[in-house]
Amino acid sequence: MKTYRIGVIKGDGIGPEIVDEAIKVLDSVSVTQGFNLKYEEMLLGGAAIDETGVPLPEETIQGVKKCDAVLFGAIGGPKWDNLERHLRPETGLLGLRKEMGTFANLRPAMVYDELVNASSLKPEVIQGVDIMVVRELTGGIYFGQPRELLEEKAYNTMVYTKEEVRRIAVVAFDIAMKRNKRICSVDKANVLEVSQFWREIVEDVAKDYPEVELSHMYVDNAAMQLIRDPKQFDVILTGNIFGDILSDAASMLSGSIGLLPSASTGKGVGLFEPIHGSAPDIAGQGIANPLATISSASMMLRYALGETEAADKIDEAIRKALSEGYRTGDIGDYDAKEICSCTEMGDIIANYV
Amino acid sequence: MKTYRIGVIKGDGIGPEIVDEAIKVLDSVSVTQGFNLKYEEMLLGGAAIDETGVPLPEETIQGVKKCDAVLFGAIGGPKWDNLERHLRPETGLLGLRKEMGTFANLRPAMVYDELVNASSLKPEVIQGVDIMVVRELTGGIYFGQPRELLEEKAYNTMVYTKEEVRRIAVVAFDIAMKRNKRICSVDKANVLEVSQFWREIVEDVAKDYPEVELSHMYVDNAAMQLIRDPKQFDVILTGNIFGDILSDAASMLSGSIGLLPSASTGKGVGLFEPIHGSAPDIAGQGIANPLATISSASMMLRYALGETEAADKIDEAIRKALSEGYRTGDIGDYDAKEICSCTEMGDIIANYV
Ligand SMILES: CC(C)[C@H](C(=O)O)[C@@H](O)C(=O)O
Ligand SMILES: CC(C)[C@H](C(=O)O)[C@@H](O)C(=O)O
Repeated sequence: MKTYRIGVIKGDGIGPEIVDEAIKVLDSVSVTQGFNLKYEEMLLGGAAIDETGVPLPEETIQGVKKCDAVLFGAIGGPKWDNLERHLRPETGLLGLRKEMGTFANLRPAMVYDELVNASSLKPEVIQGVDIMVVRELTGGIYFGQPRELLEEKAYNTMVYTKEEVRRIAVVAFDIAMKRNKRICSVDKANVLEVSQFWREIVEDVAKDYPEVELSHMYVDNAAMQLIRDPKQFDVILTGNIFGDILSDAASMLSGSIGLLPSASTGKGVGLFEPIHGSAPDIAGQGIANPLATISSASMMLRYALGETEAADKIDEAIRKALSEGYRTGDIGDYDAKEICSCTEMGDIIANYV
Repeated sequence: MKTYRIGVIKGDGIGPEIVDEAIKVLDSVSVTQGFNLKYEEMLLGGAAIDETGVPLPEETIQGVKKCDAVLFGAIGGPKWDNLERHLRPETGLLGLRKEMGTFANLRPAMVYDELVNASSLKPEVIQGVDIMVVRELTGGIYFGQPRELLEEKAYNTMVYTKEEVRRIAVVAFDIAMKRNKRICSVDKANVLEVSQFWREIVEDVAKDYPEVELSHMYVDNAAMQLIRDPKQFDVILTGNIFGDILSDAASMLSGSIGLLPSASTGKGVGLFEPIHGSAPDIAGQGIANPLATISSASMMLRYALGETEAADKIDEAIRKALSEGYRTGDIGDYDAKEICSCTEMGDIIANYV
């Protein structure tokens, strides 16, 4: 029987609770689908700071490299907010992304029909939304040098190399080929040289994908269009900081934010995590929604391990639970038949798969 | 009788049509309120390129400095899109902002009750929204040096000096004092040094305004919160590029995008313009909505000339026209009694003031 090594980073806040439910589901689906999962827990963020003094311990850097994929909960919380930059939980996450080389952040924003009323947007505007935001994750202004905080001024550098843009564009075009074959590349080429460069390289990559329809949009207009008519988008391709902003906006308009997963992939091992944060205010109460993490586990099976059937089973189970009216408290207002705890929701999905 | 010198930049696309209607209204209100307006037309953007070969002629730079305020329509269009960066219409506008020193871009996002159904958001989410986005306009990554487009890479610099942050923060706090005394400063301080710097200076300025409640939000979260619950915001204070993105998002959720004005002010002469673009696709057809430009003229009277009563008259006239069911085509779906052309709408407002 095939055995996969899964790195597990539970993290802070609700991280441990939601990851435990995802593991419950993975264990269940691996039995019915006939493969083995071996978990190795690693530290990151606040939990790592408390235990080792740094947000990204060397053991984690080495550990993830030996895995087939990494499942991650969430990090951060007020306890660690006032530490110096290099000691903060976020810095650990950024360092891990860089170390793992996960340059492609895939963030689907889709609407579950059952939750169409959960959005602040009108149902007719969002029903059927299915966007894949492809965000560059290990370059741009997040990592650009030089960067400095001085007495009288401070600065960061938004920089992209040809190779960095090319490889993320290739990921986006490959994904578009499996979807509706439309890419909207988002930049600010009317103001920024780095965006003009981005646009030229994306144009160049497009030549290898004659079937894909490529358009370009300025980031300010993209923010408007996402709100005005999100259904116009299929794949959105963009850089690190624009992707940070737009993917959050896209997921919020779906109204399904507690259910949305993400995948960060690159040349090596991939990192799979819910898009939401560590929600320290509700941690430990057993009321967190584990579905985004369970859905991230499904993305892991599909994209990292090639266990497509197992992934399908999980996705179906989530839909079934929703359509039968099972809801965690965060989405309890929308056609709920039964409000479940975090572990109850995990049990239901594990049972269905 | 008091006489003001108004610089008029009609620009491209629908620019000339909408500015003409604003002038019609200004002429009318100046008679009833007893002051004189002297207009001086100047060139910018595509119109300037066609006439002089450059998007920002020296006569415009000199001309605006002699005015009490500048009223501006919109620039740009496909005709000039493939010119080199330094010759593009946008470059002219950025140059003008810098030359005029208009570092504070005030972009109100508010909802006209009559148009509450025009938004893609649910009416209960947006009714009563009244946000003032205060965007830094002459610094940050828009103007930061060094910047370069090379063969293998390209980069821009996001930089702020203490003085640049301080003066825009002071503008925001002064505005907040006249509103609901709440400021949300938006940055990405968990990743960027320049944002950490921004945050520290804003904190420092806040000490002079003990009555104002200051909060901080990361830009990705701000994009989400604007969609989830825009009513939570009073004044949003942010840098140039974040402000570009968030102010467009904020105005789109209001559903009133064809009606929203903006003011760019600084140490000297202010620039007043609608937030929408030059809409080349409908230019010359007489169907453009002049209300955003008329509303910008009202902001000009209020903030640059101190003609508060005249400004109030215009604002009342706009509300009256809307509540009586007069609509231009762009908002014709929402409780319209009569669809007006651009000039008809101008006549109605000019008549009411
Ligand atoms: C926590 C933060 C550094 C991170 C980012 O900005 O990338 C987060 O917002 C995300 O999108 O994963
Ligand atoms: C046209 C463009 C350069 C400009 C900007 O980005 O500032 C516009 O989007 C705006 O917001 O006024």
